[in-house]
Amino acid sequence: MTITFDRPPSDKGALEVDGPFTPKFDANGLVTAVVTDAKDGELLMVAHMDAEALGLTLETGIAHYFSRSRNKIWKKGETSGNLQHVREVRVDCDQDAVWLKVEVAGHDATCHTGRRSCFYRRVSSVGGEARLEITDHHRHFDPDTIYDDATKG
Amino acid sequence: MTITFDRPPSDKGALEVDGPFTPKFDANGLVTAVVTDAKDGELLMVAHMDAEALGLTLETGIAHYFSRSRNKIWKKGETSGNLQHVREVRVDCDQDAVWLKVEVAGHDATCHTGRRSCFYRRVSSVGGEARLEITDHHRHFDPDTIYDDATKG
Repeated sequence: MTITFDRPPSDKGALEVDGPFTPKFDANGLVTAVVTDAKDGELLMVAHMDAEALGLTLETGIAHYFSRSRNKIWKKGETSGNLQHVREVRVDCDQDAVWLKVEVAGHDATCHTGRRSCFYRRVSSVGGEARLEITDHHRHFDPDTIYDDATKG
Repeated sequence: MTITFDRPPSDKGALEVDGPFTPKFDANGLVTAVVTDAKDGELLMVAHMDAEALGLTLETGIAHYFSRSRNKIWKKGETSGNLQHVREVRVDCDQDAVWLKVEVAGHDATCHTGRRSCFYRRVSSVGGEARLEITDHHRHFDPDTIYDDATKG
């Protein structure tokens, strides 16, 4: 049985208390998911979930997302083996974003580039221009040997 | 002079390297912003930024967002005093999400409910239903004395 969700209350204050989880999906039917490593809090990735992905995640304890580029449910790590075991789920005040604390299986890598985190670059403002600098060069796996063109994650 | 951004390259691989920051704004002109406390990594909030908010944040070192409910630029903490001083900005592999590590001024509270973090509730699946439980009851300020109906943050 898949978990389903009631519509959020129209009263904003009613969204901020305890009780039933009534996620506020956007016009595309999605909430934002922020994913951190349960062991040290490192930010690993940001993704999106529709009602089905959110229900499957809560039911199975394995993170599922909705891929906006492929327009379908995405069980993270199904190809690479880097499944995410969900240790805790939290939600923000207006219920349009969830926070997943996960343990990553496989190579302990979340980014499709093979890195531990998708946030491997720092942004700096230099002379009125914003530039990126890679701060994590370590690849936990070689993406070319893991993925074909149709798969990612 | 406000920082502006070039359009992202059409080649996906070119988004993943170092060099110019070319944020991939969505159909509404926004990227997702994840905000953590620079001192201990706690997740404080999730918000959105348009090009102007992102440019102002990088230029001034004070976090600016785009409020989707009020449809305008939002200098976080302008009403409550809880300004966010940005210590580091990072970006994810496809450049549609940024991570801000901030120091929070004022009451050291980020949520408009007065709590330190917007993620003050845990989600649990109980008997096929998803429910919320408040785990942080401490209010750093009383929202009723800080905000009138038109302001938040």
